[in-house]
Amino acid sequence: MIYLDNAATTYPKPESVYVAMDKCMREYGANPGRSGHKLALEAGRAIYKTRELICKLFNIDNPMQIIFTCNATDSLNLALKGILKEGDHVITTSMEHNSMIRPIVTLEKLGVEHTVIPCDKKGNIDPKLIEKEIKYNTKLIATTHASNVSGTLMPIEEIGKIAKKNKILYLVDAAQTAGVYNIDIKKMNIDLLATPGHKGLLGPQGTGFLYIREGIALQQMKEGGTGSKSELLTQPEIVPDRYESGTPNTPGIVGLGAGIEFILKEGIEKIQRHEEALTEHMLLELQKIDRINIYGPVDAKKQAAVISINIGDEDSSEVSYLLDKVFNIAVRSGLHCAPMAHKTMGTFEQGTVRFSLGYFNTKEDVKKAVEALKKICDELENK
Amino acid sequence: MIYLDNAATTYPKPESVYVAMDKCMREYGANPGRSGHKLALEAGRAIYKTRELICKLFNIDNPMQIIFTCNATDSLNLALKGILKEGDHVITTSMEHNSMIRPIVTLEKLGVEHTVIPCDKKGNIDPKLIEKEIKYNTKLIATTHASNVSGTLMPIEEIGKIAKKNKILYLVDAAQTAGVYNIDIKKMNIDLLATPGHKGLLGPQGTGFLYIREGIALQQMKEGGTGSKSELLTQPEIVPDRYESGTPNTPGIVGLGAGIEFILKEGIEKIQRHEEALTEHMLLELQKIDRINIYGPVDAKKQAAVISINIGDEDSSEVSYLLDKVFNIAVRSGLHCAPMAHKTMGTFEQGTVRFSLGYFNTKEDVKKAVEALKKICDELENK
Repeated sequence: MIYLDNAATTYPKPESVYVAMDKCMREYGANPGRSGHKLALEAGRAIYKTRELICKLFNIDNPMQIIFTCNATDSLNLALKGILKEGDHVITTSMEHNSMIRPIVTLEKLGVEHTVIPCDKKGNIDPKLIEKEIKYNTKLIATTHASNVSGTLMPIEEIGKIAKKNKILYLVDAAQTAGVYNIDIKKMNIDLLATPGHKGLLGPQGTGFLYIREGIALQQMKEGGTGSKSELLTQPEIVPDRYESGTPNTPGIVGLGAGIEFILKEGIEKIQRHEEALTEHMLLELQKIDRINIYGPVDAKKQAAVISINIGDEDSSEVSYLLDKVFNIAVRSGLHCAPMAHKTMGTFEQGTVRFSLGYFNTKEDVKKAVEALKKICDELENK
Repeated sequence: MIYLDNAATTYPKPESVYVAMDKCMREYGANPGRSGHKLALEAGRAIYKTRELICKLFNIDNPMQIIFTCNATDSLNLALKGILKEGDHVITTSMEHNSMIRPIVTLEKLGVEHTVIPCDKKGNIDPKLIEKEIKYNTKLIATTHASNVSGTLMPIEEIGKIAKKNKILYLVDAAQTAGVYNIDIKKMNIDLLATPGHKGLLGPQGTGFLYIREGIALQQMKEGGTGSKSELLTQPEIVPDRYESGTPNTPGIVGLGAGIEFILKEGIEKIQRHEEALTEHMLLELQKIDRINIYGPVDAKKQAAVISINIGDEDSSEVSYLLDKVFNIAVRSGLHCAPMAHKTMGTFEQGTVRFSLGYFNTKEDVKKAVEALKKICDELENK
């Protein structure tokens, strides 16, 4: 199996991730932050270590500002619903994932206004359009860092500047970039960073986090056992406890820590270079095939390692079915949970066949995928 | 280390849980329910298998009514906030965990009334008191199945009958009983069952579920990618997708499935008998020690395998510290995230030292714990 579905979840993970999780489960599988015995303390320390590793990777000062969640959707919901209140206005883009746009649409019912900035057909945004839409009640700008459909990278540093200048909070969805691109929350003026643990960060499914800049108080989504301030019938205000109710996913968070350690050891620049090289190679080869339409920038410098294509007007599901069944190549087809992005790109009816490359993919994998596509093109033409 | 903190999380897990999780991570670590390729389908099937195992254990008909969450707190928040609206009334008890009572107190601000039924000093509730408090707007009765502080078992079957008779929904928090006591949602008239995966069900931390009886629609807490109805900007209404946004914790859910398979193979009656026997033995031995106060029923038939004690008026943290440091015995001290329960029992100031036994504990473990307590009693007396 050639796995080219890394935008859904990276696979495989580094060996150290499997080992760390298994060790955690077997050797210190206690509940962190509740009891005071040795095993519970060891579990607590392991979770704190992951907080520190996240800080290191994203240039965050205070590990207590990392809120562990169960995925990026969870992080985005906490950020959006925690910040936006009746009468507030939020600006977002037409390339967002449903995990961003669905909560925003839901907030409409509570009296939160939103403006969706249209991107061009390749998924590019003009930051000036964002600035133009800022109103007296604009509380938040919320954008992805890279589209999960076209791969298009957003100019988050530029948008961060606009947010800062206008004293508006900036929320970045780094689902497709964390662990591959250098994200510096200070340099980029990111106030809230929502990230899955199981994609570029190479941790297991069931993990994610939200970074909240110090001084920003969100409404929590849940209340419950925090292991702290047990005497209170209300949720404590201390961070991260306020936002982290219930027993944490200790083995998952430990696995995430191992994933980030792997990234820090390899060097994030090396990871980015590798994925860029694969993307560049694949884009080049795909352009040689007549019937293939490539969406997005078609430029490895302007997109993450996500390539959406179609073969003429063939059904995207059929192409991905053939890739899987005949060629043992795993990709995703359809709408990729981002209907507005498909409308932007003009692929709302057809969907796309999405190839998403990871650090463990090789040039050989790309070669085989391109060969398979050529054969599918021939076969479909002769149908 | 003798681990007697199973009410926080069970440890160790069955070997099959470690193996299943590692195999999932290594062999089919794809994203279930999104893509259509072989690995994604295998991940999807594994999650469905856990749904079916849960159905078998709790006598649930439809696997799609199982909503995976990240812990019991998550499940309780979804249930309470999903059901209760402005003007509704909920009845609960004074023995609840903060994960039940904190969301209920939060809902007060939205105009949801609540009544807390006082339990007696041993944590027992008189179901008639619940029935007496039912009003025209009572929408929900919400109780734990067993106190996490005193172990006291609640008469959930009787309460379920009262709920049914009065056409009120019944939510049960089975955090301390699922996987050890037979819970039949039909026989017991349970409409909503909130359960962690990492306690009696022997799965990993980071898992839990909420069972929702068919026909009950909750307000979801989150919106986002569901892998279904990608074209919609609003959350789809199909279940479980409506409540399960974002990438699921596949390895965790697979581990939970392995835990439940272990329980079904051993037989839940055998597990209950073993924990009851250990509890009975420990209660008997503890009663022989002069200075020890035991809270709760002091009857293994009336309580889960959770025993809270104090030595005279010694600080509970000091006792648990000595148990850990000198005797290598892991317990929990303090308020156990349930302040009202401690007020009910009269231990709000002192907290308690909590011993919680699991299926993998032995009579020898209990013997050593009792011996250690005797020595601590002697030492503290001679201080």
